[in-house]
Amino acid sequence: MTPDVEVVGAGPIGLAIAWRCTQRGLTVRVVDDGQPGAAHAAAGMLSPVAEAYFGEEALTGLLVESAKRWPAFAAELGDVGYRDDGTLVVALTGDDLAEAERLRAYQAGLGLPIDRLRPSELRDREPRLSPRVRGGAFAAGDHQVDPRKLVPALRRAAIAAGVTIAAERGLARVTVIAAGCGSAALAGVPVRAVKGQILRLRAPDHGPPGFRHVIRGYADSRHVYLVPRAEGEVVVGATVEERTDSAVTAGAVLDLLRAAADLVPDIAEYHLVEALAGHRPGTPDNAPILGPLDGRPGVVVATGHHRHGIVLTPITADLIADLVEKGVPDPMLAPFTPARFT
Amino acid sequence: MTPDVEVVGAGPIGLAIAWRCTQRGLTVRVVDDGQPGAAHAAAGMLSPVAEAYFGEEALTGLLVESAKRWPAFAAELGDVGYRDDGTLVVALTGDDLAEAERLRAYQAGLGLPIDRLRPSELRDREPRLSPRVRGGAFAAGDHQVDPRKLVPALRRAAIAAGVTIAAERGLARVTVIAAGCGSAALAGVPVRAVKGQILRLRAPDHGPPGFRHVIRGYADSRHVYLVPRAEGEVVVGATVEERTDSAVTAGAVLDLLRAAADLVPDIAEYHLVEALAGHRPGTPDNAPILGPLDGRPGVVVATGHHRHGIVLTPITADLIADLVEKGVPDPMLAPFTPARFT
Repeated sequence: MTPDVEVVGAGPIGLAIAWRCTQRGLTVRVVDDGQPGAAHAAAGMLSPVAEAYFGEEALTGLLVESAKRWPAFAAELGDVGYRDDGTLVVALTGDDLAEAERLRAYQAGLGLPIDRLRPSELRDREPRLSPRVRGGAFAAGDHQVDPRKLVPALRRAAIAAGVTIAAERGLARVTVIAAGCGSAALAGVPVRAVKGQILRLRAPDHGPPGFRHVIRGYADSRHVYLVPRAEGEVVVGATVEERTDSAVTAGAVLDLLRAAADLVPDIAEYHLVEALAGHRPGTPDNAPILGPLDGRPGVVVATGHHRHGIVLTPITADLIADLVEKGVPDPMLAPFTPARFT
Repeated sequence: MTPDVEVVGAGPIGLAIAWRCTQRGLTVRVVDDGQPGAAHAAAGMLSPVAEAYFGEEALTGLLVESAKRWPAFAAELGDVGYRDDGTLVVALTGDDLAEAERLRAYQAGLGLPIDRLRPSELRDREPRLSPRVRGGAFAAGDHQVDPRKLVPALRRAAIAAGVTIAAERGLARVTVIAAGCGSAALAGVPVRAVKGQILRLRAPDHGPPGFRHVIRGYADSRHVYLVPRAEGEVVVGATVEERTDSAVTAGAVLDLLRAAADLVPDIAEYHLVEALAGHRPGTPDNAPILGPLDGRPGVVVATGHHRHGIVLTPITADLIADLVEKGVPDPMLAPFTPARFT
């Protein structure tokens, strides 16, 4: 039986698209190659504001819109580790603060909600921050989710809605390529692997972490984030490397731990439980590639989400399901069309 | 069938004692509880000179004598990763050099072979050392072995010689307690677990490490060693902690990597393949506990080797086998008798 839609890729993007398509009455097959994708290593920050970078206004708009959809999306799925404690930006030195404040001013100038905080205000919010911290900011709307809960939850929801999972590709009316780094070979789009190394720590004595905000830090020119989970896990990441290997290197672990411990000294006592490398699907302009593929009727791509795959999951699923159902791209997709690279 | 000897403990000490006893015509059973012991985490440095510490003259004498026996011991066993490239002591700062030189002068004063080296001489021997290194020393006679090759080799040799391995204790004419940290409960001797965290790195591109000496470093008051293996592995260790848990902590990994990378910057590119914690069987005076147990006829102990279990394996095996065979302790055992603590 030929389904209406075949989605190639069983990461959050692929599963969410499949789920949304099924909810619209389409029959859907997801092709899962069984390999862990970028989500396996992802921290799950939903940071449209703190990740709004110079020159990426279209992407920022999409991040903000997707983040708005996250609370309802999470509620539909059940426990995906959604937490709305907000994100603290923390700078260790004067130079770090200058760098952080320059970006914050840009973000605030876009009208995004991010407020400068003095060191005392930062420590009021998180007493475990280092006394060396020179300043920072608070992005109340930048939340988090746990990708290792999200992917199984999406899979369960998709299957419950009628999606089938297959190991091999077959025929379908429409094919959606949502294969992350593998999309380059499948669809000829300019997606490349951007290596990221990440650590998982655990608070000692089976307790929760000693802090509740996502912490995005600048520490002696090193960038690091610490994402605390309710169960005691803290994700510390991440390197950004133009490499395709999966090695965990001594230098990366050293840099991540040093920056994290400079900002939150207590983490020296935390247990190191996992160190791994993943690969983000990067694109030439750091924005995703979303829409119909020119010259390949019936083929749609949804890939290249780079560091934003988790936050962009709800809107990607909505817009791609819409496109598959109606055959016409939403105007919001225009900046992200595959055709921009041809 | 009741054997002449039961050895409780299947680490290098227990296996070597069993092997030597069998070679003397005794029948021997080794009791193996199946748990990894201290050797699983050990680096395998044979450092009688660089580990000769103030106030431990009796221990130093035993270390020196055992190290002399290592080449023949290794030759009997086959490939146990024995390497005689020697050990470099390396100090990063002026304070580190003062600390290292004070110990070196003491060691040289005992007549031990350790020569001061200038920074240029250190770098001639190991070009990958940091240009920051302020000085150090060379202990030509301090060698290394690979404990993860040693233990299986000893087990094979012991079994080939007729030793049987059992999971449970039984009857025997003489019992040798060589159970490391477990010896406290079995024999009532004052052995305590001293936690050590250790890392295993691997040189990139499947090559050998970029240095061949064992490096014992002082880096901003942190002590670290780097042990290069022919196959590309580098062992980096070790913390010394009065703790009994087995957690790998972020702070320990950070300190070890920082000190190692300060001394040999290239190791930042090495792959981190393992981080683990082991427990050394420590004693009140840091010396092993070797000899007949007072009030327990037929019970001999060979434990408490602390950080010196690998280097002390040959002499411990020789002296304990001698004791078991003849019933009379060698005078060399006198400083290490269990009775010194009662």
